Amino acid sequence: MVGELPISPLAPKAQPELPQIAGVSIRSGKCGLKKDGAPDFFVASFDEGTSVAGVFTRSKTRSAAVDWCRESLGGGKARAFIANAGNSNAFTGMAGKIAVDKCVDSTARLLNCSRNEVFTASTGVIGVPLPYEKILENLEEIYTKGADGWADAALAFSTTDTFIKLATRKVGNATINGIAKGSGMIAPDMATMLAFVATDAKIESAELQKILSEVNEVTFNSITVDSDTSTSDTLLAFATNKVEVDKAAFRKAFHEVVHELAMLVVKDGEGATKFITIKVTGAEDNLAAKRIGLAIANSPLVKTAIAGKDANWGRIVAAIGKSGEAADRDKLTVGIGGVVIAEKGQLAPGYDETPVAAHMKGQNIEIFVDIGIGGGEATVWTCDLTHQYISINADYRS
Amino acid sequence: MVGELPISPLAPKAQPELPQIAGVSIRSGKCGLKKDGAPDFFVASFDEGTSVAGVFTRSKTRSAAVDWCRESLGGGKARAFIANAGNSNAFTGMAGKIAVDKCVDSTARLLNCSRNEVFTASTGVIGVPLPYEKILENLEEIYTKGADGWADAALAFSTTDTFIKLATRKVGNATINGIAKGSGMIAPDMATMLAFVATDAKIESAELQKILSEVNEVTFNSITVDSDTSTSDTLLAFATNKVEVDKAAFRKAFHEVVHELAMLVVKDGEGATKFITIKVTGAEDNLAAKRIGLAIANSPLVKTAIAGKDANWGRIVAAIGKSGEAADRDKLTVGIGGVVIAEKGQLAPGYDETPVAAHMKGQNIEIFVDIGIGGGEATVWTCDLTHQYISINADYRS
Repeated sequence: MVGELPISPLAPKAQPELPQIAGVSIRSGKCGLKKDGAPDFFVASFDEGTSVAGVFTRSKTRSAAVDWCRESLGGGKARAFIANAGNSNAFTGMAGKIAVDKCVDSTARLLNCSRNEVFTASTGVIGVPLPYEKILENLEEIYTKGADGWADAALAFSTTDTFIKLATRKVGNATINGIAKGSGMIAPDMATMLAFVATDAKIESAELQKILSEVNEVTFNSITVDSDTSTSDTLLAFATNKVEVDKAAFRKAFHEVVHELAMLVVKDGEGATKFITIKVTGAEDNLAAKRIGLAIANSPLVKTAIAGKDANWGRIVAAIGKSGEAADRDKLTVGIGGVVIAEKGQLAPGYDETPVAAHMKGQNIEIFVDIGIGGGEATVWTCDLTHQYISINADYRS
Repeated sequence: MVGELPISPLAPKAQPELPQIAGVSIRSGKCGLKKDGAPDFFVASFDEGTSVAGVFTRSKTRSAAVDWCRESLGGGKARAFIANAGNSNAFTGMAGKIAVDKCVDSTARLLNCSRNEVFTASTGVIGVPLPYEKILENLEEIYTKGADGWADAALAFSTTDTFIKLATRKVGNATINGIAKGSGMIAPDMATMLAFVATDAKIESAELQKILSEVNEVTFNSITVDSDTSTSDTLLAFATNKVEVDKAAFRKAFHEVVHELAMLVVKDGEGATKFITIKVTGAEDNLAAKRIGLAIANSPLVKTAIAGKDANWGRIVAAIGKSGEAADRDKLTVGIGGVVIAEKGQLAPGYDETPVAAHMKGQNIEIFVDIGIGGGEATVWTCDLTHQYISINADYRS
């Protein structure tokens, strides 16, 4: 958390209470990685027999921690997940690999498990070798006596976040908890930044992976703050296999938790004042619909118009045109806040701007676009682009 | 020109004088299309036997004027080019086609030429039918008595430009003049916004088109202000075939004129305070190099860091990673201002930030990236992302 930044106006009014998950312990504390000395590390430990699934950034310059997790996922078993903020350990060459090795080794020894049952994630500045000694020095103390619970862990791995991101659902007698962090460098080409979900439900790794991959596509992979894909994006899910669940109900609840976390990341988008939902229908296929949605969501001109409460649908049309996907100017329908503004290549007959102007003043902006040429559809979510985004990224130094 | 906007700090200190081109007359005036009543229209007329070449936006939502020019190019002959600001006539459906037809008809009658020898371009607000009657009413008056010359024409088709964009070269006894407009919605997927080049050199349409297409790829198609491709991008070149020229010398001079115009557009990028050159080498091929360059140039995090004079090379690495092109983290070299900052996946040994910090304070920022895997190279140009960009696009209403 950056204390000098104002809390996002889109922050939730109240935070949920995250219950304990059978078979999971989560403890956090300070290793001295953040400049302000705030908590910066957590270790989640799992009982034996815990399933694991993950999705990661597709960045070609991904971090050493991401490389490690991708490899270890093959084992299908997890005993620990460690995460730090203050340093992303990305683009740190051999030093980055060594840092991951040292942290994984120490955690495996502490928990008496094998190395590939330890997962790790790092977030923060790019290109500075992770001072892993600070983690090794504090690991056992935090593991045994650190602050207990999910909210503290969410705080520990936050960086430019202005609020912590928590979600929880019950499914039968099982529970699913999730936490996420991130507000800039967000255009997940997988999952954004770091998110961590755990459940005591009984579900094997392969099935968990399938659900995670599918859910990720329509949640984290459908949000963008600034089109900048991070080097460290990691979404990991763990299941301690304690409680039998109905699979369909589990999938639904799991989707809800991940969806909620992804939306919270958008709502903490750097400088955000508006939460924007973009629904695209009638595209060539679902992938085309998503690409069109992201072209709109990533257009600086659309994002600044919304910041200015301007129903500038011409910029939406231009963004569709640049997406590279099949579109026909004369078959498009574009609307905002449920009102059709333009159709068949021109302004809708009798279009009245009054209700749209009122909608633009609200916090939740809904854009819909029908391409009119096929059955593809997708929804993407983003936020507006404001002076505060520039301030965070240009005026303050990281 | 938007009077309330400050002139770009990157504006040229002096403007070149554009000489007359044999066989070209260019006159401008007012049709009442701009809110402030400033000149908003010009008509360039050419002697019989004038060659023509053009490149246009690849936007799927391109304007009616672009559609018209693309079709007419097949004729290979031109007698007139008319251009207006204040209204882009884009996404105006059948009304847009009618407006183009009416303006072309009237111009063809006035010049006693065929319809497909008349080229047209419009820039300004999207989605509002062009009040073409205003153009028809003033066309003859402007054609016969309008302000004479290139600088006035450049002013007439400007919109949010803070300075006019002129370039000229001599090649033997021939001259090449060019003007351009544009400062936002600039990520040409062809040529940005509107640019118009004329020469009295002897060069047939097919050859002019070949040169134009090649030069365009490494000039206008290699610049970006905000990643937003316009619906109206048009670059047209006309040759009146009066003066014999050496073809190689002509190509070089033509390239220089178009390059200069493209750079002027970047230097008038909305809110720009820094002119950024990004050289990419060692990519898989030239296209990959260009895409990597544009990924860096379009990254809001890179652009805001530069606005903040921050040599944040980690953001450059992240942008390379998200480009989708082949890259190997451990083979990358990244530098700024001639200084190698990172190589082989980590900070360069003995890296001294002092000269780089000094470079970041200047107006011209030079980024170089070697991908280290092939022979592909490209240069792209962009500007920084500042508070003023947000002000122009969110605070002021268009």
